[in-house]
Amino acid sequence: MNEIALQYVLGIDIGGTNLVVGAVRTDGRHVVGVHSQPTGASRGPDAVIADIIAMGHTTLRQLQAEVAGAEMLGVGIGSPGPLNTTTGVVILTPNLGWTNMPLRDRIAAGLGLPASLDNDANAAVLGECWVGAGRDKSCVVGLTIGTGIGGGIVLEGRLHHGASDCAAEVGHMTINLNGRRCGCGNDGCLEAYASGPAIAARAVEQLRAGAESTLSTLVDGALDRVTAATIYEAAAAGDELANEVVRDTALYLGVGVANLINIFNPDCVVIAGGVIAAGDHLLVPLRREVARRAFRPAVDACTIVPAELGNHAGVIGAARVFMLTQIAGTA
Amino acid sequence: MNEIALQYVLGIDIGGTNLVVGAVRTDGRHVVGVHSQPTGASRGPDAVIADIIAMGHTTLRQLQAEVAGAEMLGVGIGSPGPLNTTTGVVILTPNLGWTNMPLRDRIAAGLGLPASLDNDANAAVLGECWVGAGRDKSCVVGLTIGTGIGGGIVLEGRLHHGASDCAAEVGHMTINLNGRRCGCGNDGCLEAYASGPAIAARAVEQLRAGAESTLSTLVDGALDRVTAATIYEAAAAGDELANEVVRDTALYLGVGVANLINIFNPDCVVIAGGVIAAGDHLLVPLRREVARRAFRPAVDACTIVPAELGNHAGVIGAARVFMLTQIAGTA
Repeated sequence: MNEIALQYVLGIDIGGTNLVVGAVRTDGRHVVGVHSQPTGASRGPDAVIADIIAMGHTTLRQLQAEVAGAEMLGVGIGSPGPLNTTTGVVILTPNLGWTNMPLRDRIAAGLGLPASLDNDANAAVLGECWVGAGRDKSCVVGLTIGTGIGGGIVLEGRLHHGASDCAAEVGHMTINLNGRRCGCGNDGCLEAYASGPAIAARAVEQLRAGAESTLSTLVDGALDRVTAATIYEAAAAGDELANEVVRDTALYLGVGVANLINIFNPDCVVIAGGVIAAGDHLLVPLRREVARRAFRPAVDACTIVPAELGNHAGVIGAARVFMLTQIAGTA
Repeated sequence: MNEIALQYVLGIDIGGTNLVVGAVRTDGRHVVGVHSQPTGASRGPDAVIADIIAMGHTTLRQLQAEVAGAEMLGVGIGSPGPLNTTTGVVILTPNLGWTNMPLRDRIAAGLGLPASLDNDANAAVLGECWVGAGRDKSCVVGLTIGTGIGGGIVLEGRLHHGASDCAAEVGHMTINLNGRRCGCGNDGCLEAYASGPAIAARAVEQLRAGAESTLSTLVDGALDRVTAATIYEAAAAGDELANEVVRDTALYLGVGVANLINIFNPDCVVIAGGVIAAGDHLLVPLRREVARRAFRPAVDACTIVPAELGNHAGVIGAARVFMLTQIAGTA
């Protein structure tokens, strides 16, 4: 076993719902001590950061126990933004309620390790490009579909951050200029159609209008309990309304992906998040919509694939950000 | 005068309507022997290529006459695509009727100089980034608005080409998913709303529906002669319908630009083409629409500016492509 095989980076993935921490070997092929817990953002930033640091120590102990002689190089942090990758400060996170939080330095101090900070969706997409669905590709656009729709742009293995670290807000691309109102205040954003809550909202609107569906039964008539997950479940069981909602989701995502393909001419688009549970119910009509809308030579050059790393993507990608930015010579 | 001040690159800008040729000094600050003539594409590719080569020789003679000791390093060609920048072959140009045309090598042979080939809109945007409206910026998206809407993406001074040399087809971004049919076959493309012909078509639709306007008089009642230029002229003279059409154009372009800002977080967006003749009538509402739709930290980081190089942009940018790809050490 050579030296590199004993070097690890701690990856921290901070979400509005869950925190995930793990140790990632610098070849990306071994992940140790991954564990997660609810973020509990309502307790305020100090409690959350204390938890993150405690989770980091837990992973460090597990690593020492499992890999004799393991060396920990530093910490990569993925957080909701906007944030500043240079200063390591989270400027504002509506979901967490943080403002101008020197997150990188607080975690670095708490763990006694150098650290890096990047956007959570950026990190997840970078992880997929490193050792997941986008590996060995040169131009990758990733969409992370959950409560919102985030994204990442990876060119030649490195993230495109833009002028103020807020590139790849692909969920706020207008696809329907007078369309559904988005939480961001704009009309017709992709996120207003295809995020988890938007998927649920479109189904519930049809149920309230009297559409027949097993969805009502699945939530015992409490329509506000319909989630995107309920809809994938019902669709898999053959429910017609649920299938229609999934198909429409595929069309909306297809519009967004077609736009990204026309703009970037990527060799790979990675779709991440709960929505990929719908499998071919989603991907087949999505690819068809893309082929209908995007330029043929760009469509032909691009594979559209589901993410492979599941909820490890953020941890793996955050570790990779640390390697690319803090370890000289990493390529 | 040092040596660099005597080195030039021939720039060739091939358009569906006009050919433009000129010699560009390698600091981008001096352009000699620029001349243009109608493309005359209906005569077939051989006649057009013969004209291009003849125009190149004319410019070379002018350069020798005007700049004693000038050295010509090579030829940069900008052409409609899709094309292959590596092989120098134009795969297909609907406007010109060319298929699998080894354009780069034919022009290189005809002029006895090494040559490079890139997309015409890419070249024009690169020109603006080198010595025009996007100079000294690190992440620039350009839109070239004419018969169609093309674009270019310049990151750290270099074009982003994508996996098959067809990146930056920003005109075929869907902004209205069930909207106007585009020439590309898709519905709701930006180009279907804001290209020159689309601008004219929107005005003519309203005129045919009975709208009052001086536009009818300007074309002696022959509505099929209304062009985007007629509309800018009427708008400048205070015509209400023409102003409404320009304002709507600004909104549509604003949606497209907002999307590009959310995706790239650029420090500059350059708008090129006849439409900028409308000046602040266009730019003020365009910037307002962008501010309404895009993320605040991304909007704040970006200037939206009209192109500065006029119809020299393509020639200057094509020459720059040659420098970046064929002259070692150019940065």
